Amino acid sequence: MTRQEDGWTLVAGGAGFIGSHLCRTLLEAGERVLCLDNLQTARLSNLDALSEYPGFRFVRGDISQALPVAITRETGAIARIYNLACAASPVLYQADPEHTMLTNVVGTDRLLRLAEQAGARFLQASTSEVYGDPDVHPQPEAYRGNVSCTGPRACYDEGKRAAETLAFDFARGRRADVRVARIFNTYGPHMRMDDGRVVSNFICQILAGEPLTIYGAGSQTRSFCYVEDTVDALIRLMRAEMRELVPVNIGNPHEITIAELVETLGAIAARSVRVTHRDLPVDDPERRRPDIARARALLGWEPATPLSAGLRQTFAWFAAERRALAGVPPVVRVTAAG
Amino acid sequence: MTRQEDGWTLVAGGAGFIGSHLCRTLLEAGERVLCLDNLQTARLSNLDALSEYPGFRFVRGDISQALPVAITRETGAIARIYNLACAASPVLYQADPEHTMLTNVVGTDRLLRLAEQAGARFLQASTSEVYGDPDVHPQPEAYRGNVSCTGPRACYDEGKRAAETLAFDFARGRRADVRVARIFNTYGPHMRMDDGRVVSNFICQILAGEPLTIYGAGSQTRSFCYVEDTVDALIRLMRAEMRELVPVNIGNPHEITIAELVETLGAIAARSVRVTHRDLPVDDPERRRPDIARARALLGWEPATPLSAGLRQTFAWFAAERRALAGVPPVVRVTAAG
Repeated sequence: MTRQEDGWTLVAGGAGFIGSHLCRTLLEAGERVLCLDNLQTARLSNLDALSEYPGFRFVRGDISQALPVAITRETGAIARIYNLACAASPVLYQADPEHTMLTNVVGTDRLLRLAEQAGARFLQASTSEVYGDPDVHPQPEAYRGNVSCTGPRACYDEGKRAAETLAFDFARGRRADVRVARIFNTYGPHMRMDDGRVVSNFICQILAGEPLTIYGAGSQTRSFCYVEDTVDALIRLMRAEMRELVPVNIGNPHEITIAELVETLGAIAARSVRVTHRDLPVDDPERRRPDIARARALLGWEPATPLSAGLRQTFAWFAAERRALAGVPPVVRVTAAG
Repeated sequence: MTRQEDGWTLVAGGAGFIGSHLCRTLLEAGERVLCLDNLQTARLSNLDALSEYPGFRFVRGDISQALPVAITRETGAIARIYNLACAASPVLYQADPEHTMLTNVVGTDRLLRLAEQAGARFLQASTSEVYGDPDVHPQPEAYRGNVSCTGPRACYDEGKRAAETLAFDFARGRRADVRVARIFNTYGPHMRMDDGRVVSNFICQILAGEPLTIYGAGSQTRSFCYVEDTVDALIRLMRAEMRELVPVNIGNPHEITIAELVETLGAIAARSVRVTHRDLPVDDPERRRPDIARARALLGWEPATPLSAGLRQTFAWFAAERRALAGVPPVVRVTAAG
């Protein structure tokens, strides 16, 4: 394997939520970025600010199909591949479960083969969903998970597990230099309004003056990592020299209940919010919280952004989006100080 | 979905160990059988006795690649598809882990699409390996398993889990009428001599006059089902009317230790056998035993062949194979009565 430090960085899924922040941060750091996305769930507007960089190129393509020539003709110049390509929220990845599975397996295989050909380093964006509905808290990387392989979430959970398997097999076979990040709940600007995740759901409901939908009692916990922190970890992981291939949890170990999230958002919105309750979806995990000891040790990383600060940024972005899309004034005022 | 009761039965992996017995039993029952196999780990000699049936046709092809025209041109006449295609023993499926994964995911997807087009009923041969190294005994179908998605066995275990996921998603989407069998340890004639499974290993070592290799202390347990019983269960499952799609364990709940297996084989071979011990391979399950309550209830099935009778058949077949291959007289005599 050769390494071209000055070659292209390919970001598959680069127009998506985390991918677009990753592209921007890499460009700011001086890397040249090939952004590949099928725009299935991502939006070109996420890339608006990036077209000013001369080292940025967008290619539309679906990794479950043959890679576009605009990518493959650069094979010799691709030095790093981040694979963030896959719809990541249940409502979106369940819309076409076969495509979700093939994106993770066929798509990851294709990109691993590209990495092998290019001699590029490869980072697989895996997910805390590989732990399923965990019965161990917090989850260390050695935990094997509690995943239903037959349920409606399996196309994503098992697809991501299978993608890890491929990545590890390419590494064991010395076909590619591989990194695997297990990304836990992440939030921030560029989340979709309609993807059904709790942070975006709540903010959109507050902005629309609607009651917040809580699934179950609201006692289930989540740990939310701000997207800038997640991107920082991914870049550190890609750049780190690793003595052995191990998956690395990337997330915020600060655990809060959904009810506490509602309170924090209410404070940011400076209004009292109403809630309604609905049944928990099938296989929805009751708790999930990363053990990030490995990320601390290997990458010298931990999340730096307090939840209130990250939520305030996110809230402000959604409010601006809403204004831009609807041409309406903001429904609520974002408080200036934390 | 339409159903042509008199159409072809496609058996993918039909030249393999279980597949070849399945083909024969289906032909004996009057079905017309299209046998598809890439001959990666299967042998044409397994099909020797089948060419006399006018309703038998063999097609060489790899389901991880495009399906052969000899299959696709029969699409309108395919009524049932059994997918048994994948190398199933660790030494063989780990030889090309990427191909193992793609066979399970891309191959199963291709055959599910064929079932959708043909209106054929589809049976996925899954495996007890979806339970990994279980911490629940015996394993009911609701158990989610304890599988490492990053280890050397993952290409098979996770591949089979992903194949189940695809099958369930095709069923949920009403794209195909699907059955999923989780097959536990099966033994019998047509096992490969070199596939590293414990029964074939031990018999070959006895026939060669070598000491038997026991991994670990020999206290790990297995439950062995004779291949005729397994095939009976698969055909019942394919023919059963199911009110809901659920995976069904197929195996023998009679649990014995590896040390007990050595004793039984020694008695059949009518000689004392020596043993040597080696370290357990990575992720080798310590115990595995099916809960077959569901198969009993839904299929009216349970294994009928006593271990000693099945082992005697298997031993005799291996002894004959060894004579045929090497042109040498049998090293040991098979006892005539049980």
